[in-house]
Amino acid sequence: MITVQSAIEIILDQIKPLDTERVDILSSLNRVLGETIHSVRPNPPWDNSAMDGYALKTDDIREASPENPVELKVVYDLPAGQAPKRGIVRGEAVRIMTGAPIPDGCDAVVMVEQTEKRSDGSVLIRTHASIGENIRLSGEDFEAGEAVLDEGTLIRPAEIGMLAALGVSNFLAYRRPKVALISTGDELVDINEIPGKGKIFNSNGYALSALVSECGAQPIHLGIARDTKESLREKLVATEGADCIITSGGVSVGDYDFVKDVLQEMGSEMVFWKVAIKPGKPLAFGMIGGKPAFGLPGNPVSARVVFEQFVRPTLFRMAGRQNIFRKTLTACLTKDVKIIPDRMNLIRGELRMERNDFLVTPLEGQGSNLISSMVGANSFVIVPKGSMGFKKGSMVKVQPFDLSMFLGETYDY
Amino acid sequence: MITVQSAIEIILDQIKPLDTERVDILSSLNRVLGETIHSVRPNPPWDNSAMDGYALKTDDIREASPENPVELKVVYDLPAGQAPKRGIVRGEAVRIMTGAPIPDGCDAVVMVEQTEKRSDGSVLIRTHASIGENIRLSGEDFEAGEAVLDEGTLIRPAEIGMLAALGVSNFLAYRRPKVALISTGDELVDINEIPGKGKIFNSNGYALSALVSECGAQPIHLGIARDTKESLREKLVATEGADCIITSGGVSVGDYDFVKDVLQEMGSEMVFWKVAIKPGKPLAFGMIGGKPAFGLPGNPVSARVVFEQFVRPTLFRMAGRQNIFRKTLTACLTKDVKIIPDRMNLIRGELRMERNDFLVTPLEGQGSNLISSMVGANSFVIVPKGSMGFKKGSMVKVQPFDLSMFLGETYDY
Repeated sequence: MITVQSAIEIILDQIKPLDTERVDILSSLNRVLGETIHSVRPNPPWDNSAMDGYALKTDDIREASPENPVELKVVYDLPAGQAPKRGIVRGEAVRIMTGAPIPDGCDAVVMVEQTEKRSDGSVLIRTHASIGENIRLSGEDFEAGEAVLDEGTLIRPAEIGMLAALGVSNFLAYRRPKVALISTGDELVDINEIPGKGKIFNSNGYALSALVSECGAQPIHLGIARDTKESLREKLVATEGADCIITSGGVSVGDYDFVKDVLQEMGSEMVFWKVAIKPGKPLAFGMIGGKPAFGLPGNPVSARVVFEQFVRPTLFRMAGRQNIFRKTLTACLTKDVKIIPDRMNLIRGELRMERNDFLVTPLEGQGSNLISSMVGANSFVIVPKGSMGFKKGSMVKVQPFDLSMFLGETYDY
Repeated sequence: MITVQSAIEIILDQIKPLDTERVDILSSLNRVLGETIHSVRPNPPWDNSAMDGYALKTDDIREASPENPVELKVVYDLPAGQAPKRGIVRGEAVRIMTGAPIPDGCDAVVMVEQTEKRSDGSVLIRTHASIGENIRLSGEDFEAGEAVLDEGTLIRPAEIGMLAALGVSNFLAYRRPKVALISTGDELVDINEIPGKGKIFNSNGYALSALVSECGAQPIHLGIARDTKESLREKLVATEGADCIITSGGVSVGDYDFVKDVLQEMGSEMVFWKVAIKPGKPLAFGMIGGKPAFGLPGNPVSARVVFEQFVRPTLFRMAGRQNIFRKTLTACLTKDVKIIPDRMNLIRGELRMERNDFLVTPLEGQGSNLISSMVGANSFVIVPKGSMGFKKGSMVKVQPFDLSMFLGETYDY
């Protein structure tokens, strides 16, 4: 039985980012940039006004104050989106809108609140100004030719704003992994069926599908394989075109557990089977024709634990992401945790933040078949191999798998 | 000018969750449950085996040990998914798979690793067992009729697993808000066009579209309205069918800023205009025919600040969510922050976690037109109204708007 750390190393050793494809900006959120983006023009493209006001010469208003305003002649109006009609000479000003290019000869903008427009076409300026005041300089955001977004950047709303500001409507991004999902077991019925005696619903197929989507990958829902080699083989043939295969169930030691046999028979290079983790020990991992194939345990909680530790980093790496692991936080344990110290234990917990302190409550009912215990949980308390657990009040490592704890009912400024 | 807190109260006072609609489980991730879900049968549905092994009577193996195994007659095999053929009597055992129903007369399961199968159809049991060992009791997860998921629950992968386990393939969820997006300004060109002199690309339309998607809402991209009342009116007419309207640009004090005029003329009940926040002061908010309408500033950074403080909570509430605000964290400031104390300031920052301490670095270039400063940022440092800023080393409130900081390049257990 290998350690969790070794299993991660062995798996990721096999995994490379997928190829890139051209994507439209509107469908690129949470994908990873597959090329470095250079700006073709500076931003701002020209010196422009940071305010609605009057573009003028600072020399003309050196003595201006509320008591002694200076009168200037307004030679034209310059809305944003238009080029200046001409430069100005002494005694002149241009009525200018935020974002409009600064006309030649102007070296500052006075905001409209410090001026008074007069009916004769002139304006009273009630303040002096320093050179460059309220002028945004060309290139102060970035220069032409600058590498503004690097290959490998995760595309968040800010990056989408940047790409649009550059006029980049489509670009290369890493392909989203297509993930084939197969649930195995004669005890399973689909959620649209009526379960007979001895049958339960295929919940893993749906939970895994949601997890795959949450990773930004594309689930391919292949349904249930029966406990026959033929049925499983048929489903595995249907995974052609997928980049990754996930089965759940059928990897324990029993007579009816033959997923690993069929995987091997289909040309899978079995890499390992069984990891020192609880829950989740009977994890099978192999490569089928260069694609990673995970045989997850059938227990819903075990499947989730294994997904978070091994499958999520795999899918993130395939999608070109660099930060692929969930970080752990240190939290104060609110109840004793006692375990058998044979392997790393992941205890479902409810993590919460009080001011800046993290507290974690291990949840009752840690049986790996208890679906309800996942509903209340948002994290795993990590109990390393060899530890017998922790006393209430200990500071422990916690791996959050759901960050909705960072949202609250009230604002807190 | 009203405070940020008042603006939030005033806006949310107008906002109710949208109605509910029936959704398929496969498209329900991150939506909010619009009904309470009761279980129709207990889970597990029947007492079942937690292991692959032998179901038997504990009385029969009271004296069993590795040195003195007890021999039992294996009367049949019971795979998961099948009903027991019959109960057992003393001296008998059933070969049972994980998840299979416990046959009548059995009161424990001994795992296969502690047994030895013999060619004559019997099995040697090498351990004693206590009553109930390796048996999962019917209803230990939840009972029939129990309210297992409450109306208002956010649907994460765990909830999808639960719904599938209950056989619930579709259910009521709150409708996703449809959000019409209009960028205003003669200076704007679409990203597929070539900008002439004085023109810039419409970046807000795309960044806002990504933000709306990230909230789980549906953006309706209406493009650019020109700086004429007719053009804006035309775009606003096209927002019919949307649940919320967002414009950007055109809400400052200048002559060409008439968004608020047109909004008013279209029957909008203007609620306020201008909030004591920097950047983001010129925010207009009104209701048009019962729909919230936000007039966001045109500067990309201001638009983002205002979106996070006012629009996100609105869209979350419309989608039925209860936790609608981003929580703040307390972090140690790595550089001085100096500001003019007239309104609440939100300073872009880079928040990171070192062990359990949060550190935040305010970013250079805080001009609200600097798109590049959003790319490096993941949070806002909150400087309350009246404060002149903070010294390096101060503990400050930080509002993260991007949680990818909780992912890392390496595992850390």
